[in-house]
Formats: sequence, C-alpha cells, structure tokens
Amino acid sequence: MDYDSIFRAAIDRLHEEGRYRVFIDILRTKGNYPNAQCFAGHNGPKPITVWCSNDYLSMGQHPTVVEAMERALHEVGAGAGGTRNISGNTHYHIELEAELAGLHGKEAGLVFTSGYISNEATLSTLGKLLPGCVIFSDELNHASMIAGIKNSGCEKRVFRHNDLEHLEELLAAEDPETPKLIAFESVYSMDGDIAPIVEICDLADKYGALTYLDEVHAVGMYGAQGGGISERDGVADRLTLIEGTLGKAFGVMGGYITASKTIVDCIRSYAPGFIFTTSLSPVLVAGALASVRHLKASSVERDAQQAKAALLKAKFTEFGLPVMPSVTHIVPLLVGCPVKAKRISDILLAEYGLYVQPINFPTVPRGTERLRFTPGPSHTAEMMDELTSALIEIWDRLELKLAA
Amino acid sequence: MDYDSIFRAAIDRLHEEGRYRVFIDILRTKGNYPNAQCFAGHNGPKPITVWCSNDYLSMGQHPTVVEAMERALHEVGAGAGGTRNISGNTHYHIELEAELAGLHGKEAGLVFTSGYISNEATLSTLGKLLPGCVIFSDELNHASMIAGIKNSGCEKRVFRHNDLEHLEELLAAEDPETPKLIAFESVYSMDGDIAPIVEICDLADKYGALTYLDEVHAVGMYGAQGGGISERDGVADRLTLIEGTLGKAFGVMGGYITASKTIVDCIRSYAPGFIFTTSLSPVLVAGALASVRHLKASSVERDAQQAKAALLKAKFTEFGLPVMPSVTHIVPLLVGCPVKAKRISDILLAEYGLYVQPINFPTVPRGTERLRFTPGPSHTAEMMDELTSALIEIWDRLELKLAA
Ligand SMILES: Cc1ncc(COP(=O)(O)O)c(C=O)c1O
Ligand SMILES: Cc1ncc(COP(=O)(O)O)c(C=O)c1O
Repeated sequence: MDYDSIFRAAIDRLHEEGRYRVFIDILRTKGNYPNAQCFAGHNGPKPITVWCSNDYLSMGQHPTVVEAMERALHEVGAGAGGTRNISGNTHYHIELEAELAGLHGKEAGLVFTSGYISNEATLSTLGKLLPGCVIFSDELNHASMIAGIKNSGCEKRVFRHNDLEHLEELLAAEDPETPKLIAFESVYSMDGDIAPIVEICDLADKYGALTYLDEVHAVGMYGAQGGGISERDGVADRLTLIEGTLGKAFGVMGGYITASKTIVDCIRSYAPGFIFTTSLSPVLVAGALASVRHLKASSVERDAQQAKAALLKAKFTEFGLPVMPSVTHIVPLLVGCPVKAKRISDILLAEYGLYVQPINFPTVPRGTERLRFTPGPSHTAEMMDELTSALIEIWDRLELKLAA
Repeated sequence: MDYDSIFRAAIDRLHEEGRYRVFIDILRTKGNYPNAQCFAGHNGPKPITVWCSNDYLSMGQHPTVVEAMERALHEVGAGAGGTRNISGNTHYHIELEAELAGLHGKEAGLVFTSGYISNEATLSTLGKLLPGCVIFSDELNHASMIAGIKNSGCEKRVFRHNDLEHLEELLAAEDPETPKLIAFESVYSMDGDIAPIVEICDLADKYGALTYLDEVHAVGMYGAQGGGISERDGVADRLTLIEGTLGKAFGVMGGYITASKTIVDCIRSYAPGFIFTTSLSPVLVAGALASVRHLKASSVERDAQQAKAALLKAKFTEFGLPVMPSVTHIVPLLVGCPVKAKRISDILLAEYGLYVQPINFPTVPRGTERLRFTPGPSHTAEMMDELTSALIEIWDRLELKLAA
C-alpha cells in the first residue's frame, strides 16, 4: 500500500483549489489588543493589527479575568489532573455551572473542554437517549453540531437556512409520536444574521419537538446580562437546551450547555465526550467565571463593540466595499473566490500589517469566500480609516468590483 | 411526547445499577498535593488526601510550569480568541508542536484541545482519507479511540486485548490491497499493563498496515526523555502516529499527535475536531511546553513515582489486598461490584479523609469494578501505611476477601 501518495494527493487537492491553509504565526500583546506581533515567515517579526479575533470584547485581556486566572493558578495549579468523575472536579467547575445556568435561566449547566465538544457530545447523546428521534438541522449549522447529529445515528432533516415554512413542512411530515429535536444557532457567525427563535419555538410547541440553540457567537454579546439573543428576545425559557462557548466573547476557552436538571444529568452521565476526558483546567474555569460575572453586570463592552461594528459597516458601505447584509457585530466582505480572498489577506498582512483571515470552504460554501472582520471595543476610528483605505487600494489593484 | 420520563428513566437505570456518579467537590492545594480540600456535601469542607489523580508527577504544581503559565497570561492574555486558522495560532503553539515532534522523533506535531479530541478527530479523519480502510482496534481501547473509529465510517476489527495471534488472524483475513490501520495503547490505564509494541509493528510491516499508538498514560512517564513506552522500547520510529495528552503526566490540559509532515498536514487540513474550534489557550500551551521540556531533561519525577508505585503495590500485597497485576505506575485493587466499590470509596472519604474514586462500568467491564490508586512522588510511606490500614479495616467491615 502506498499510503504516502494517498495522503499527498489529499494535500495537493487543497493547493489546487487554492484553499491550503497557512496559519499566521502571531502573539497578541495583552493590554494592547488589537495590536499583536507577527513572526518570521510573514515578513516578521513585526507589529500588526488583528481584525479577525473572536475575543469580541477583549475579555481575554481584562484585568478581572487575568487576576482570577492568576489566583487559581497559584491556589490550585495548572491542570485538573483527572476527568470530572476521577479527581478532576473542582469547586470552580461547580460555581461556573451554577453561574451559567443562572445566565440562561435554566436549572443546570455543564461545562465541557470546548464549544465544539459540547455540541458534539450533547447532540450525539440526546439522539441516542431518544429512541427513533428525528433531528431537524438548519443547513448552515456549525460543523460541531453536524458532527453531533451524525454521531447520534438519528435521522436528520436539513431545513433551508432560517426558513420557517420549510422547517414546518418537514416537522409536519413526521409521525406525531416520533421524538423530534430542532437544532439551530442564534447568530450565524459567517453571515451575521439571526434565527427567528420565537417562531421556531412556536413550531416546536406545535409539533412537540425539543429545541437546541447554539448561542456561541451571542453569549456575552446580547441581552442585558449577556445571555445571548434568547435573553434579548425574552425566549430563553422556551428553549430546551442552550449551548455556548467560553472561548469567544468570554475570552477564555471551553464550552457548556444549560437545560433542565434531568437533561443535564443525562448528558453528564452518558456522553463519552464529557466523561472520558481531563476536565477543563481550573485556571480557565476561574477565568471564565470572572468573565461571565463581569459581563452579567457590565454592558459597557457590549455597547462599545456594537458601536464599532456599526461604524465599520458604515465606512465600508460609504466606499462601496461589498459588505454582506449582517444585523450583528460581524462584518463580512464578499469576495467569492478562494484565491482572491487569500491574495487580499496576504497583501493586507505583508504590506499594511493588517491581519484578517480569508474564510474559504469548508467554513463557508464555495463561491461565497469572504473576509470577515470583527471590530472590538479597542479598534479606533483611525484604525478603521487605515483599513478602509488599504482595502480600496487592493480592490483597485486586483480589479475587483466596488458598488456604484 | 413525554420526553421528561424518557430522560428520567435513563437516570433511574444508573441508580438501579449502583453506578450513578457523584462528583466529589474538591480543590487541590498547590504546593501541597496530594493534600486537598473537600467541600460541603461530603462532610466538608475538610482536608483530604488525593489518591487517584492522573497528574502523575505533580507537574501541575511545578514552579517551572506555573511560572511559564503566569508569563503567558500576562504577555498574551487568557484565551487564543480564535481557531488555529482564524487568529488563534500563536508562537507558543508552533513551539510546542516542534517540541512534541522532537520528543517522539517525528517530523511534525499537532496540538488539540484534549487527548479525547485528538484521538476522535485523527482516527475519524484518517479513516475517511483512506478509501476502504479497515481499522484493527484492541478491545480495551479508550472511548475516544472507539469514537474516532466509529466516526471514520470504516470497517472495524476488534482484536482481543494485546493478543498478537488474534490480531494476525484478523490482518491475514483481509485483502493485501486493503488499507489497514492498527490502533492501540501503550499503557492501558485501568489495568496497568503494556502492549507488545515491537511485535505489533512487526505484524504491521508484514501486512502493510499503518500503526496508531495512544501513549496518553505513558508520555512524561517512560523513556529517558519522557517519550513514553515507544521511547523506552526504542520503537518510536516504527509507529506511523503517536498520540498523547498534555493533561496527565504533563499536568496541564490538551492533546496531540505526532507523525510525518504529510499526515499531520492532512489532519490539520481535514479534521473538523481540529479545524472548527477555538485553539488551546496560549496559557495552557506555555505551561505544557515548560512541562515537556522539564521532563525531557529530568528523570527525578519519573523515578520517584515508579518507586512510590512499587512501594504501594508491595504494601497492598503484604496485607493480602487484591492488587491486580500491573507492570506500570498504576495500582488497581479489584472489587468486582459497583455498589461495594462505591461503598469503600465513600467510607474512605467520609471516615478517613482519603479520596480514591471507584471505577465502574463503562470505564471498565462489569464485574471488574475496582479502586485505582495513582501514588505520586509526593505520597509518603506514612500516607501509604495510613491508606493500607484503612483499607484492611474496611475490607473486614464489609466482609470482603483478603488473599491468604
Ligand atoms: C456556531 C459555533 N458553535 C460552536 C463552535 C465551537 O466552539 P469552541 O470554539 O468553543 O470549540 C463554534 C466556533 O468555534 C461556532 O462558530
Ligand atoms: C487512553 C486514553 N486516551 C485518551 C484519553 C483522553 O485524554 P484527555 O484527558 O487529554 O482528553 C484518556 C483519558 O482521559 C485515556 O485514558
């Protein structure tokens, strides 16, 4: 067997399609974000400005978070040293789970090592616990939800993105006695649009389905306490499960679900991706706890971020750059070609010291390749002007189209 | 649909079998391990001694590790803020991957958020990249490998634990032109036995199979530099992939693979569990890097741990406690009943302040329920005497059998 040539061919396919990924080697500078250092190989080391972090609110460098982590590091040490069941459960985990349950108005919470594994483990386990369950999945659901649904072994019905009629059609086609679960996101992070959560809950009630909402890009960002779109829209209590991450707006790392005591107990007791792994480091748990608590009490960061996102959208629109319609904090610019998206990104980094990653397949559908900007509270109007001018120059150089 | 009663029934089944898990709420005390605090609900708060941590060498409280984490926390901040591809790649990640590749004598390394996801993502992706691949899996492989193999969609052949004849029989039964992968562990952590790695590599050569070795319980622990059993046995270069964790002997959190440049590039480019998730916090990466480097240069911790494990086994044996045969640092005591295993553990904690978790199904097969002790460099001979006396008293109280 010539295994090597099979593996080489897999890599060659990526090069041919122009979507071979090169990771930019950076070090952010705490207290100084969005400024960072870019290392050798990318004309570095040199200072750059980061425009594509998902640490949306810069909580990863917030003194409260950093202090909490430092304290835990000195009190408990680096790692948990075991699974949650075997010596890896700490008082921090229990406090964080209670805090997250409170954030979403649920009875219980459960922390995982990532948002990816929280989706994968929970959806696959829910599906296995409900015999004959059919899972209804938005076509733009994140890879981690798709993995969980696939691994559940359940029948899957994919509904067109945010399309209530299509969802209802699919729900109505099933036997009323069949267990059903609707899995969807609140903020779709590559387009910046929002799901009709209330209407989906109405359909769930009508057809007796459970609901699973991924609020990964909304927790900390929306709602008076940072409980996400479901808090903002006052609909949290109608959702069976709400899932989130500790790695984006909360600035740390890890994932979680919140739901009824019974459901959380089931996932805790049956999900291999929760059971058979070293638990989240108490250092991260302590940092996340501080971050969640801070953003429950403070809306300053959220408001600043929304203002900055609106400003950047306005500047892009003013100069005819192809901003995609987004009703959230995400500012995507359509390119529509993986090679050009990468080329723009390369020029921005090499010539302007501006870092934004091209988003190609499989993260977004082919033909919709884009640049995705995530301005944060610390991006200034001057930085935005610098970015906009650079983009206009490159758009011109590469003979890309601007709006009239 | 009465979903709630379905979920309740799932929980009731666990109670009936006596294997409903209650997480012990603890806080380790850095610098003071194996001493810790046990919180309310378990007769706490009170001081306890931990006997079942997988932070085998206490590296989670090593000053070098703690300092490295503190530095990274202050230089970079709490989280990575993105996936490896989208702004979440840091110079620490690149250094750690190079260090791990060096540790196992491989061309390249790749870091994941956990050992669980490194197994799941790598095995499932390897299987998908090799059309028609058959995976040969040791029957005692860890849940994360089982998940990866299942999710690969490949045909699976399970060979009896460490049984070379059975493995050869299964290999010989396949078409020579079929791609093959043998997946196994070096140290099986619940029994403490070791795989015949050289002989499995011989079979792999004979039948043209790739090899995948999980060294999760051996990295940092065996070999002159902590490269695991494959280093100790001088066989690392014969294995296609070596996988490990940063969360056990290295004391932090995270997982990794090492292999050829091409294979690592394939997993990096195709594995959803690697691509679609916030990358490991730079704080943890910096800690792991310090830990790996320390244990490459120092054997003091390894040697002390082996001596302590041998001493505890000797004490248990002397008093007729049913130690299971283990050739490694793991000291399992057979109980054979989930209810009794939990009862012993409960008494140890409540009456003696000694914490060892009962290990029940599905972590081990039914009927082989056990207590699993992991003495570390900081467990003293006096602590062992205290533990042994307590066990003898409880064995007597519960009318359990001692050896003659
Ligand atoms: C919608 C969605 N869900 C889940 C995840 C995974 O979360 P995490 O990064 O914490 O693994 C992501 C992104 O990474 C995401 O975009
Ligand atoms: C053999 C084996 N592989 C993999 C893992 C998972 O590693 P991690 O704890 O880093 O997720 C474990 C235990 O947790 C294990 O025992």
